[in-house]
Amino acid sequence: MGESQGTLRDVAHLGHVELLTPKPEESLRFFCDVLSMQEVARQRQSVYLRAWGEYESYSLKLTESRQAGIAHTAFRAWSPQALDRRAQAIEASGRGLGWLDGDIGHGKAYQFTDPDGHVLELYYESEKYQAPDALRPALKNQPQRTPNHGIGVRRLDHINFLGRHPASNRAFMQQQMGAMLTEEIVLDDGTESGIWLTFTNKAYDVVYTMDATGSTGRLHHIAYWVDTREDVLRAADIYLEHGIPIEFAPGKHAIAQGFFLYAREPGGNRIEIATGSYLILDPDWKPIIWSQADRAKGQAWGTPTVATFHTYGTPPVVPEERR
Amino acid sequence: MGESQGTLRDVAHLGHVELLTPKPEESLRFFCDVLSMQEVARQRQSVYLRAWGEYESYSLKLTESRQAGIAHTAFRAWSPQALDRRAQAIEASGRGLGWLDGDIGHGKAYQFTDPDGHVLELYYESEKYQAPDALRPALKNQPQRTPNHGIGVRRLDHINFLGRHPASNRAFMQQQMGAMLTEEIVLDDGTESGIWLTFTNKAYDVVYTMDATGSTGRLHHIAYWVDTREDVLRAADIYLEHGIPIEFAPGKHAIAQGFFLYAREPGGNRIEIATGSYLILDPDWKPIIWSQADRAKGQAWGTPTVATFHTYGTPPVVPEERR
Amino acid sequence: MGESQGTLRDVAHLGHVELLTPKPEESLRFFCDVLSMQEVARQRQSVYLRAWGEYESYSLKLTESRQAGIAHTAFRAWSPQALDRRAQAIEASGRGLGWLDGDIGHGKAYQFTDPDGHVLELYYESEKYQAPDALRPALKNQPQRTPNHGIGVRRLDHINFLGRHPASNRAFMQQQMGAMLTEEIVLDDGTESGIWLTFTNKAYDVVYTMDATGSTGRLHHIAYWVDTREDVLRAADIYLEHGIPIEFAPGKHAIAQGFFLYAREPGGNRIEIATGSYLILDPDWKPIIWSQADRAKGQAWGTPTVATFHTYGTPPVVPEERR
Amino acid sequence: MGESQGTLRDVAHLGHVELLTPKPEESLRFFCDVLSMQEVARQRQSVYLRAWGEYESYSLKLTESRQAGIAHTAFRAWSPQALDRRAQAIEASGRGLGWLDGDIGHGKAYQFTDPDGHVLELYYESEKYQAPDALRPALKNQPQRTPNHGIGVRRLDHINFLGRHPASNRAFMQQQMGAMLTEEIVLDDGTESGIWLTFTNKAYDVVYTMDATGSTGRLHHIAYWVDTREDVLRAADIYLEHGIPIEFAPGKHAIAQGFFLYAREPGGNRIEIATGSYLILDPDWKPIIWSQADRAKGQAWGTPTVATFHTYGTPPVVPEERR
Repeated sequence: MGESQGTLRDVAHLGHVELLTPKPEESLRFFCDVLSMQEVARQRQSVYLRAWGEYESYSLKLTESRQAGIAHTAFRAWSPQALDRRAQAIEASGRGLGWLDGDIGHGKAYQFTDPDGHVLELYYESEKYQAPDALRPALKNQPQRTPNHGIGVRRLDHINFLGRHPASNRAFMQQQMGAMLTEEIVLDDGTESGIWLTFTNKAYDVVYTMDATGSTGRLHHIAYWVDTREDVLRAADIYLEHGIPIEFAPGKHAIAQGFFLYAREPGGNRIEIATGSYLILDPDWKPIIWSQADRAKGQAWGTPTVATFHTYGTPPVVPEERR
Repeated sequence: MGESQGTLRDVAHLGHVELLTPKPEESLRFFCDVLSMQEVARQRQSVYLRAWGEYESYSLKLTESRQAGIAHTAFRAWSPQALDRRAQAIEASGRGLGWLDGDIGHGKAYQFTDPDGHVLELYYESEKYQAPDALRPALKNQPQRTPNHGIGVRRLDHINFLGRHPASNRAFMQQQMGAMLTEEIVLDDGTESGIWLTFTNKAYDVVYTMDATGSTGRLHHIAYWVDTREDVLRAADIYLEHGIPIEFAPGKHAIAQGFFLYAREPGGNRIEIATGSYLILDPDWKPIIWSQADRAKGQAWGTPTVATFHTYGTPPVVPEERR
Repeated sequence: MGESQGTLRDVAHLGHVELLTPKPEESLRFFCDVLSMQEVARQRQSVYLRAWGEYESYSLKLTESRQAGIAHTAFRAWSPQALDRRAQAIEASGRGLGWLDGDIGHGKAYQFTDPDGHVLELYYESEKYQAPDALRPALKNQPQRTPNHGIGVRRLDHINFLGRHPASNRAFMQQQMGAMLTEEIVLDDGTESGIWLTFTNKAYDVVYTMDATGSTGRLHHIAYWVDTREDVLRAADIYLEHGIPIEFAPGKHAIAQGFFLYAREPGGNRIEIATGSYLILDPDWKPIIWSQADRAKGQAWGTPTVATFHTYGTPPVVPEERR
Repeated sequence: MGESQGTLRDVAHLGHVELLTPKPEESLRFFCDVLSMQEVARQRQSVYLRAWGEYESYSLKLTESRQAGIAHTAFRAWSPQALDRRAQAIEASGRGLGWLDGDIGHGKAYQFTDPDGHVLELYYESEKYQAPDALRPALKNQPQRTPNHGIGVRRLDHINFLGRHPASNRAFMQQQMGAMLTEEIVLDDGTESGIWLTFTNKAYDVVYTMDATGSTGRLHHIAYWVDTREDVLRAADIYLEHGIPIEFAPGKHAIAQGFFLYAREPGGNRIEIATGSYLILDPDWKPIIWSQADRAKGQAWGTPTVATFHTYGTPPVVPEERR
């Protein structure tokens, strides 16, 4: 890992994800009514959605599909030069898929896969969101008025991929994307079973955890940010009133110390409402290593991790496994 | 401003400040008992103090002096190369004071002044804090056990300098230090009277506001971070019980949307307990400009700014002006 | 005061208020869209509104009128016997107005005035709210589903009358209604200028403060309860986004230690969003007396009380006095 | 139940408990250092402790003993007359044990048992706490300065007894003590397995839950109150840093909607840090009945109740059952 830790700085941040859903109408209502996201565009089988605090046009492309899962995950490069540098390096690594013309809200994008087969994209040109009159905020330093209903998620925070070999994805993310490894689970046999990576001062933007089913290319969850733990507790009550089954009630992760709430949107994808955690300002951060013994203690306050966390992902591979 | 916005990335973050106090014992008790900071070293007239969440050894060097004020402000460079690059550029700009051997906890530092005369330092080598047994945390991803008393500040968050011409300091910080301008007050006559600058994904690390007394080189305040608004409200109660006069009760700033509480430590320096605000992920962020009319609305919830905010700083220049 | 302190226990709690508004449509939208109250009935010039946590049908009767103000304030008796006892005693005191047949949601009521001329009512029979299917809660121990928009006030908490002689109202409330005096402002000349009274374990249900304009029968404010200080801070943001002018930003009262936010509904009546304070369990509570010197310290964290607090009430008597 | 619901009103509130501990020094340190309670007196094998918000001298008498458990639970009567009325009625019911001279901080007390054998006391005369200078609060409406360390519990909130037949204890509490039944678990076979009772506007002061071991006279837990959910989350972190094993991490109860955190003090007694819940203002409240099917849903957010909740109590009867 050593030298590759955070020296490239060519990737600015996680930009957006394309989520697949077999129940597009119900998923859309979940993101709009319950999470308070805003529709900004529609095209073919996709609806583009944003959270109120995002400076770009959207963070979620919700696409109708036969089954749930993650179609692609896009990162914004730091500059046009950074975009070209990364594209060339990834091309040379053999994982490149080539350039795309872009999509609603952003310019040309370089497409590639991580070793686990998740489709990734990198772009630089990005339209900044301009709120229409009805959504203009009272304070000019926020992109959009805060919503008056629902949980009110602020911005896409991170993505957690499931993967067959987190370590190979970790190496790719560090070497080709310049990600910094911040925390890590290393089993007694040396297997790296969980990987926390960042491109920013946040403790993590991308996570890889071991897929206990041995599948590849699956999604564990995406997370939307709220500002306070009270917001997370309030979100749990909103889920309760909306009949959204809660998979993992609010609690505090030991790793990265995030405060969480997990549920599944109607299409089956796991969604986290997240806050807490900490900022990393150190340019030569030494990754935190969690052992098997550490992990046996459960989450920060001793709560055992729900069993479905290790096997359920999208697309689901064990059909009956729905909570 | 244009091109200089955030492209250098040679400065990692604000590291520590040296605060002067005419009442060293009382100031020390304030930082230790009320803010929950930890003494890590003493040398000559100085005590070195840390907050529990800081990865470096300390963020506050508290030095006995005839009057209150800020002796120097230190930033950590991103790498040894970055440190040299900045030192050369600043030297060339004519504001350099030369290299220092270092201090407790960090290596050699390049010293210089901003156009207003505040003494600044840049260093790279830094000792990571190792908690002694009694202060070892339950969770290995925090540097130190959270304190069991007081407000429990987590880390130094930002510094707010007073200055005769914020604009010239702004230009220096952008051009020589690679700071990014995030928000700004521009009066009707074009004067830049408030400047918010960052080196990180935080909305601001350094602020310059106009010194209404026409003085130079003064301090408006330093801010320590807590994680929640509840922590800030709790801090106000702790100040109340400790007889610390509150200058500006908890509220929400319009600019940068920070949630604040201001008081003065016994030596006279203004201290903010801060949380809230927002992260900036956009690499080509367009600064938010606040007009005189905008500012006339007061803070976010309409509260007028306390009058002493425009004149009181350290060292005090209007001796009787103590609230 | 002595013996009358809390021994009668014939009044159970504050039930509802009838608020007058010259802008019925805008007031209604404020209570429904911003405070999240629910319309339960309409009759003639009145709309009946409830908060989600109330066991009775409503707590607010909003009535169109030439000017803002309070038409009547109703309390629920502990039992039918208690109602009769109070009616007889008040009749004997000479302040009785007689029995009314009742109104939507409650049975016969005895009407009377306090010495300041505010119209009060006492009733016992009360319909318990039955949520329609669409508003049925997930948890059976709350009367109604929590709303998915707005501030989400839980229940009517207290009423603050303005009065020419708080002391005479205090005596009436203690002797005829069995209220317990909990806190009080006594000026240096012995004038009781602020009176906090309760019928429950809450620190106050009814407040009388001196009307600096010398008027009688006016309203200072009514308060709706939310559960957390975070809810109050969030309410301030919601006001900000809805363009509701904030009269007194969130803060902590010294007296009774309530956490507050004050604004005026479009009709002009002052509305508090309230939480905090404390429970009184002591059956022989000794009232807390605040002196003029105590009050000179401002609110709990030193914030001065806004000037309009001492003169603005409804109906307004100084027409131009709008903030 | 019918008529007995809340009509007597002779009992004002839960006053204090006497807890037994086989590890008196460690238990004392837990209550003082971690819960921030204050020692007010010592006598023989007992230490008397108070929380900062209590108007009486103490709420916890901690007594050295061979094993953990609850020695007695004391309630304050509404008046001297109420005390006599209750003593006579209980005497007549055959459960009386007779008068005691009193104890530190309170006058003569009538002692009796509930049908399950828990020792109860009723007293009226009570010394109001007078803070010594060092503990005098900044605001005169609180009995004591808020502590500057630890969790900072405010007051004793409730007691949860384990019992062989909750229903018979329920009937005793209603008929002899005038308690109001607020919520209840009724199994499919009609067994009342959980009983929530109140003497105040709080949703519960006393709880009886079925002892799955068939024992009598045991304690499930006592609960201390904090004002906010943030305080409960902070308490969990404080437990974590102090190595106090958390039995049930912060969450929301379905019944009574309390927000909880459970751990065991070093002597083995289960302690809850509690907030949330709701006030009951209705004088003819209809109890909420929870069925077996309702309870199968777990706590409010779907979290299953920890298994030890149904069997662990003090004194422990299954010696090895320690988490």
